[in-house]
Amino acid sequence: MNFASDNWAGAAPAVMSALARHNDGFSPAYGTDPLTDSVSATFNEIFEREVAVFFVATGSAANSLALASCAKPGGAIFCHSGAHIQVDECNCPEFMTGGNKLLSVKGPNGRFSADALREKMAQVPDGVVHHGQVASVSISQATECGTVYTLDEIGAIKEACRSRSVPLHMDGARFANALVTLGCSAADMTWKAGVDLLSFGATKNGCWCAEAVVFFDLDAAKSFEYFRKRGGHLFSKSRFVAAQFEGYFQDDTWLTTASHANGMATRLAEGIRQAGGRTAWAVEANELFPILKRSQMEALQAAGAKLYEWPAEGLAEGHAPASDEVCVRLVTSFATTDEDVDAFLKVLSGTV
Amino acid sequence: MNFASDNWAGAAPAVMSALARHNDGFSPAYGTDPLTDSVSATFNEIFEREVAVFFVATGSAANSLALASCAKPGGAIFCHSGAHIQVDECNCPEFMTGGNKLLSVKGPNGRFSADALREKMAQVPDGVVHHGQVASVSISQATECGTVYTLDEIGAIKEACRSRSVPLHMDGARFANALVTLGCSAADMTWKAGVDLLSFGATKNGCWCAEAVVFFDLDAAKSFEYFRKRGGHLFSKSRFVAAQFEGYFQDDTWLTTASHANGMATRLAEGIRQAGGRTAWAVEANELFPILKRSQMEALQAAGAKLYEWPAEGLAEGHAPASDEVCVRLVTSFATTDEDVDAFLKVLSGTV
Amino acid sequence: MNFASDNWAGAAPAVMSALARHNDGFSPAYGTDPLTDSVSATFNEIFEREVAVFFVATGSAANSLALASCAKPGGAIFCHSGAHIQVDECNCPEFMTGGNKLLSVKGPNGRFSADALREKMAQVPDGVVHHGQVASVSISQATECGTVYTLDEIGAIKEACRSRSVPLHMDGARFANALVTLGCSAADMTWKAGVDLLSFGATKNGCWCAEAVVFFDLDAAKSFEYFRKRGGHLFSKSRFVAAQFEGYFQDDTWLTTASHANGMATRLAEGIRQAGGRTAWAVEANELFPILKRSQMEALQAAGAKLYEWPAEGLAEGHAPASDEVCVRLVTSFATTDEDVDAFLKVLSGTV
Amino acid sequence: MNFASDNWAGAAPAVMSALARHNDGFSPAYGTDPLTDSVSATFNEIFEREVAVFFVATGSAANSLALASCAKPGGAIFCHSGAHIQVDECNCPEFMTGGNKLLSVKGPNGRFSADALREKMAQVPDGVVHHGQVASVSISQATECGTVYTLDEIGAIKEACRSRSVPLHMDGARFANALVTLGCSAADMTWKAGVDLLSFGATKNGCWCAEAVVFFDLDAAKSFEYFRKRGGHLFSKSRFVAAQFEGYFQDDTWLTTASHANGMATRLAEGIRQAGGRTAWAVEANELFPILKRSQMEALQAAGAKLYEWPAEGLAEGHAPASDEVCVRLVTSFATTDEDVDAFLKVLSGTV
Repeated sequence: MNFASDNWAGAAPAVMSALARHNDGFSPAYGTDPLTDSVSATFNEIFEREVAVFFVATGSAANSLALASCAKPGGAIFCHSGAHIQVDECNCPEFMTGGNKLLSVKGPNGRFSADALREKMAQVPDGVVHHGQVASVSISQATECGTVYTLDEIGAIKEACRSRSVPLHMDGARFANALVTLGCSAADMTWKAGVDLLSFGATKNGCWCAEAVVFFDLDAAKSFEYFRKRGGHLFSKSRFVAAQFEGYFQDDTWLTTASHANGMATRLAEGIRQAGGRTAWAVEANELFPILKRSQMEALQAAGAKLYEWPAEGLAEGHAPASDEVCVRLVTSFATTDEDVDAFLKVLSGTV
Repeated sequence: MNFASDNWAGAAPAVMSALARHNDGFSPAYGTDPLTDSVSATFNEIFEREVAVFFVATGSAANSLALASCAKPGGAIFCHSGAHIQVDECNCPEFMTGGNKLLSVKGPNGRFSADALREKMAQVPDGVVHHGQVASVSISQATECGTVYTLDEIGAIKEACRSRSVPLHMDGARFANALVTLGCSAADMTWKAGVDLLSFGATKNGCWCAEAVVFFDLDAAKSFEYFRKRGGHLFSKSRFVAAQFEGYFQDDTWLTTASHANGMATRLAEGIRQAGGRTAWAVEANELFPILKRSQMEALQAAGAKLYEWPAEGLAEGHAPASDEVCVRLVTSFATTDEDVDAFLKVLSGTV
Repeated sequence: MNFASDNWAGAAPAVMSALARHNDGFSPAYGTDPLTDSVSATFNEIFEREVAVFFVATGSAANSLALASCAKPGGAIFCHSGAHIQVDECNCPEFMTGGNKLLSVKGPNGRFSADALREKMAQVPDGVVHHGQVASVSISQATECGTVYTLDEIGAIKEACRSRSVPLHMDGARFANALVTLGCSAADMTWKAGVDLLSFGATKNGCWCAEAVVFFDLDAAKSFEYFRKRGGHLFSKSRFVAAQFEGYFQDDTWLTTASHANGMATRLAEGIRQAGGRTAWAVEANELFPILKRSQMEALQAAGAKLYEWPAEGLAEGHAPASDEVCVRLVTSFATTDEDVDAFLKVLSGTV
Repeated sequence: MNFASDNWAGAAPAVMSALARHNDGFSPAYGTDPLTDSVSATFNEIFEREVAVFFVATGSAANSLALASCAKPGGAIFCHSGAHIQVDECNCPEFMTGGNKLLSVKGPNGRFSADALREKMAQVPDGVVHHGQVASVSISQATECGTVYTLDEIGAIKEACRSRSVPLHMDGARFANALVTLGCSAADMTWKAGVDLLSFGATKNGCWCAEAVVFFDLDAAKSFEYFRKRGGHLFSKSRFVAAQFEGYFQDDTWLTTASHANGMATRLAEGIRQAGGRTAWAVEANELFPILKRSQMEALQAAGAKLYEWPAEGLAEGHAPASDEVCVRLVTSFATTDEDVDAFLKVLSGTV
């Protein structure tokens, strides 16, 4: 019953066997190997156009380096108040961008609207040097609340970006989970909707360390290799990241693992509802945030469930946790089993 | 006949099987897993004292973050003119340190002497704000020339550091190769000789991405986790780095692979000498820099040898390449075979 | 009728004559001149203890360099949501601190309470690397709303700082204005209340460019000269800043100019009240924020009054501007005359 | 007999009276005042084209912010090994540029040749990410050795810059001194010769703090105001810098003061030669570096002369200081008098 996080899982079998498969022999270092070329071509296919792909070590690095590539002196980056870049990356974005400021846009369900974005951007009007200048906008797909932006919502946010001439970045730490929920193509969810650059996460969904920054604007990518190297994020034996991606994409592994994780989350959510419970936000990917009686949480933990208590901010009265309730986070992954889910729900239904 | 670089090799079998062995199940993320604890304990054993160990993605990251932890405003970092941090890391050290300046100390054979260091440090006298302030000293062991500092040389450099109250950093990208050459303990080559913090490289010697920053001064390590995270260098599925180290240390794998690589280099060097050739510098680890006739290099390349032409700076007249000669770099690794060496020498001896 | 800002005024006569008085002859550069020594001694007298004083060019520089001296990797700086460092310095604090994040503490009247601070600091718990670490707290005295913290309020904030072991910085861009309001000593308002380092502003109150960073903890000041120089903020002909301070302190000029400015603000506020108007916040220094009918503001502007429309955020309903009202900012200075005030109030009372 | 530095002088009378003249009344802050407009127009006239001018506090700030505006990730800035930005600015350039590296080009007489530059730039070839990328080239005019680049030399350096597509920056801390030596126009010495951006220094030549960054490429200037503000270098009462420049340019004050300073240096040099002495380098501006007997230096100091002993690096044998000799630096300014020069030479000729 491990629902602590999708990064507590190991690597999916397809990924691990790709690592083993490509271990032998010599291969050029620093991303100049043929496997990297081949995987890059796969990225082109997935996104239905030529893209520029750069492997990096971590999701924080992907986000921060992507934002660094569109940083400006005194720049403002707009993101959700609960975004990973805002609260969970130890100022890596600020550091990598030479001090760009992350301005929080608020919105329910982990998403912000185009209108909320426009209003926040108005706090940084053009030409007022004291307030700095708008630099970029970042959305998370799926969000930190386990919800997903619709294509229309992304498109509307892109319009707001266009009105201020800033690029739109997508933090796709859980890209695949959002993608299978929307049931659209990777192209639809990114450049066709207006995304300019993407942190493409694969670690949480079955790799062990495979993250990539994907540029849809090839010109904008020109300096990126220098940002990456300056940040210490160019792997020497880079073929091993490429190998993970090969395994990840092979036979649609990535979509299968994401579908599985999402399905497990859905089953959990349904079971919780049937047990009379509720979740803080809609369950649209592989994270869910049930609001439980504290006694339930304790019973679950006693039974060995791994989960985190979670601050459930911004919930409407009546919906927010009552005094004897607590919000917890459950994350599913490719490694979550039906048995885990069943065991969880059994404990839950046996308690009040 | 692949002598291009030790980072063209894959992972040693012991490392790869450790990765597979630790893949199953769930494990806490971000370095809080039991395997990390166990590997950290191994580091303590190897260094014969309690050390603070931090895994990072790349050697550049290890060096730059280590130097960041002892950076000062306007700080000067002293290193060899050919040091990796000076010429091969795309200003990662400057960036991570908030603009510390790398001052080159010169010296033959890739090493600098304590006297040369003292003289260079005198260019940054205490209390002259225009010139900044001394911040740290970094030596590479083994060096970029494939040579190794003796313990006495390190001790003398440490004395120079003490005279200006700056810490001594060791770039150990090829730590094991140097260690087996000296035949001393890891403790001898580091803190007992005066090293304060170490970039412990394992990637080149048989891992695929396993680097660590090791602090011998636990107090100095206190902020390091924030430097690492701020740089985007904290792995989520950190257990996989730990696993590599487990395999690396198991049954002295690391010493075996390093000895093997060094032995291959020695054999190459002897063969070259027997063929009437010479090397630019003494061959003391797993890199050698033969000075060949250009025709020889071309014959070798035609026969499939992978090697790099190399600038052989600072060589005495008579020893330096003549007009029809060229210096090349050969790097051996755990994956280098006797067959590779034989093939190389056969081509060499068949040409003039 | 110029109430646009106190930095639209020139230099007070005492300051200008000090500049002229010290122009002749040669004097050591970079702050090593005897006049700087003499002015530093005056700072000691004013603060009733030995302090470390560093002149810089601008208030933004003073704040940002002060905060840089207590920055940490991944550090969080806590300040009011409307603080100058948060909204008006183009990310200079973020840049100078290597990407520290400014977290906004909310509170009415431009001040935050110790409780609000504690609550906000709880978002950055000790030892959670993802969230970074607490680095410093900054309060503005007088605030951006023209209000003043009491000594008790500062003391309570200091207790909150102590509970998390972070230093307390005071942005004293309008230090003298606050001081004469409180009627206490400079020592009382700073280190005796718990302030660790101070941006001591003199520009707005009668100098033309004289700002200083004052450390009450001499140890903490040791590296500061390097931060200043690294930021390009060490004047060569530094004696001219010293000269301004000499004139500023001579015969209590600074207290006289601040009292005058505050008095003009008080007169304006009273006149506005008598005319049936109100101000957004209490008038406790040299800034006031009347809420006027839009027609009144237009009449004033037509009559030549210089003032800025101002966003009046966080006001209670009923008190906040109605739909036909607007909040404006008036700033007084040593150069504001009774005639200006009379003229303003005359126009105001002649309009509805 | 004060020859310590030109920044030991005060402000020229024309500058001081301009400060007094513009002190009264109110004027918009932050460089939006009419005086700044008028002075900017004067810059256009002086440079015979529209330029973008930005006032800053110090020469270090001018240089570092100018270089920041053309920084690149992993960027290399090429400058003379003795350049002020390389040895006297406490890493301000490295800091402001996000860690660009300053690579020293060597050359006699404080100048480097286009060939030496090309050779050094070859160390940073295009497309090798480990070595970073070329970012900019900076020359000092006049140089730190008191010499001056000819227009042809600047033109040749510009050709080298063009070959690598990098902008050419001129550190003009002693711009006027060089200009009157060459007897050409300011346009000739800058954009007509290929300079893209200029640190225009006026402090050393008669202002007290008046430095400007001048862009000849208006597009390249677009972000500069944000760099300046992010560095804390935007003066609020900016009119006072403008006022200094007004006085500086009025009636060609700046050319008169520079000619005077240069003339004093020439007289000193001639006197020294007549006394059998020599200078380390040609005397082409307002600095000279006589090589004196140590006894002479001591006699001069005993007589009250202020001067600095100076490291005279790179001098040919025979010309370099002998064991009983010492190189000293003398700097003249608008404030240097014939009496000072006479007194100096009298002491000199009375000693051996």
